[in-house]
Amino acid sequence: MANKTIYRLMLNGFGAVGQGFAQILRDQGERIAQREGVELQIVAVATRSRGCVYNPAGIAPAALLDAIQTGSLRDLEGARDCDPAELIASVEADVLVEASPTNLQTAEPATSYIRAALERGWHVVTANKGPTALRYTELKALADQKGVFFGIEGTVMSGTPSIRLALEALAGCEISELRGIVNGTTNYMLTQMEQGRTYDDVLAEAQRLGYAETDPTGDVEGHDAAGKALILANVLLNAGLTLDAVECSGITKITPEAVTEAAAAGERWKLIARVWREGEQVRAQVAATRLPVSHPLAGVAGVTNALCITTDLLGDVTLIGAGAGSVATGFALVSDILALHRLS
Amino acid sequence: MANKTIYRLMLNGFGAVGQGFAQILRDQGERIAQREGVELQIVAVATRSRGCVYNPAGIAPAALLDAIQTGSLRDLEGARDCDPAELIASVEADVLVEASPTNLQTAEPATSYIRAALERGWHVVTANKGPTALRYTELKALADQKGVFFGIEGTVMSGTPSIRLALEALAGCEISELRGIVNGTTNYMLTQMEQGRTYDDVLAEAQRLGYAETDPTGDVEGHDAAGKALILANVLLNAGLTLDAVECSGITKITPEAVTEAAAAGERWKLIARVWREGEQVRAQVAATRLPVSHPLAGVAGVTNALCITTDLLGDVTLIGAGAGSVATGFALVSDILALHRLS
Repeated sequence: MANKTIYRLMLNGFGAVGQGFAQILRDQGERIAQREGVELQIVAVATRSRGCVYNPAGIAPAALLDAIQTGSLRDLEGARDCDPAELIASVEADVLVEASPTNLQTAEPATSYIRAALERGWHVVTANKGPTALRYTELKALADQKGVFFGIEGTVMSGTPSIRLALEALAGCEISELRGIVNGTTNYMLTQMEQGRTYDDVLAEAQRLGYAETDPTGDVEGHDAAGKALILANVLLNAGLTLDAVECSGITKITPEAVTEAAAAGERWKLIARVWREGEQVRAQVAATRLPVSHPLAGVAGVTNALCITTDLLGDVTLIGAGAGSVATGFALVSDILALHRLS
Repeated sequence: MANKTIYRLMLNGFGAVGQGFAQILRDQGERIAQREGVELQIVAVATRSRGCVYNPAGIAPAALLDAIQTGSLRDLEGARDCDPAELIASVEADVLVEASPTNLQTAEPATSYIRAALERGWHVVTANKGPTALRYTELKALADQKGVFFGIEGTVMSGTPSIRLALEALAGCEISELRGIVNGTTNYMLTQMEQGRTYDDVLAEAQRLGYAETDPTGDVEGHDAAGKALILANVLLNAGLTLDAVECSGITKITPEAVTEAAAAGERWKLIARVWREGEQVRAQVAATRLPVSHPLAGVAGVTNALCITTDLLGDVTLIGAGAGSVATGFALVSDILALHRLS
């Protein structure tokens, strides 16, 4: 086995995604080190309200996961009382693993954290949709200028490698259009409505199951999907769009009658995020759409996500997989670090 | 734009796949050079019966495509009367693009060509299933020893990036099982049989359409799919299997009654290539299989191919796309060269 490359990681945010990432390192870190020649070493963790910690010798993922069960990182060796920005400014690391909460209005404070890390010459990998949707062009340019990697795999379809498929595996093709089921909550609801159930009924169930939040607006009005459409447009088609350019509607007006009518015509309702070239322009749209049941996206049921990429040389290429989950999204962050290692 | 890297290519075989590759360079070569920073320059082409050509200054893809319409490369500047092995031994190139016919019994003469190119320190990219199915372990070891790239994307699902998805984008995951629809001819036939047509009827149609050969054994008995199962086992699960280890049956015994019976149970017949870990062993099988219509592979209709990859961290990831075609398979070769460029 060749020598291992050690990446010192600062983890910003230690909610579900950060914990999923730490679980993978705890359970699979040894295997990844053996197989990929990469040792992923957490040296710092920042949270906004549960303390920060920095230990240049490395912090065992298991210790972090145990500590967070107690509600705080403050009893760990190297615990500090500071905020994430201070930690980014003061510790020594190679990669910022950005997993703080998404804000699709302002993209803050995550954008500031990412910018600060890039300015320090760190690589950044993030599962945060805010900075990726609203600030990708600026942040990617800064990363390029600094000669570092800016990975965003986890922002669409969680760890299912939609971004890497389009950017790397399909390099050489011209992508003209992307259509995706990129919001699992609404896809779950639409799938359940095919059993004849009402919108209110399936929404209540989705909330009980934890798929939908108490205020479900972000999902059911299409805003979450619009953020992802914007990411697809700006990352894969270099569109330079802003969020208000995404025509957005949701699933709130879909009735059991509409579902029945579609079924009678051999079709299914899906909330489709669509991004496409129209002349020199790139357009982006989120809308409930009737698809023939034979369409590759029509068969995607439940919380599963999917993306259909239309290319010149291969026609349609469709990827189907998990669209959420702490381990699946944590994997996206691992996967971005492995990609930066392969490419560097 | 950064400087372009020039790759000098020797193309071995100039049938459908080689011509698809040349068409892409003719039509998209400039765009690929601009966008990927890679100039793909054909300097030599070998065929077994239509002549060989070597021109260190480069051979325009359009000229090659025009010449082959006349049935021979012998009027091109730099035409030679020699065989492929002599050309590999004597010309200066960086990459062997191996696109000669597949032989799943002996993997020859392609294995000898690939070995000779690797021994010379050339990278090799191939769409040839023979050497990949039967000799992958040996050839990959030789490539590693020589520090060069051995790309095989085109051997499964043509240019749809199944191998790159599993090897690169899913790196860090443990793959426990792969199930695929990897033969378009039989999938077309099974899809047509769902309309109530007989096996003989749809086979005759597939032959008329050019999907099936005059002797359809390789497709309908599952041998082509078995070769691909072997590739998946050996490349993605390091199985070290031989072809006789693949349990193989085809679709010849599927009757209209069996199709109707499956439909009544909410299922569809698909010819599934399956590779999976069983304890320390890797097993491989090709068999007509009934899948529930809700399964991601059940909705894959016509000549389209698909691969469902079962992983520990992401669950099932499914890729659907073209499984054949000269341009789609030619793209696999382009894609492998772009990958070697990214990784080097």
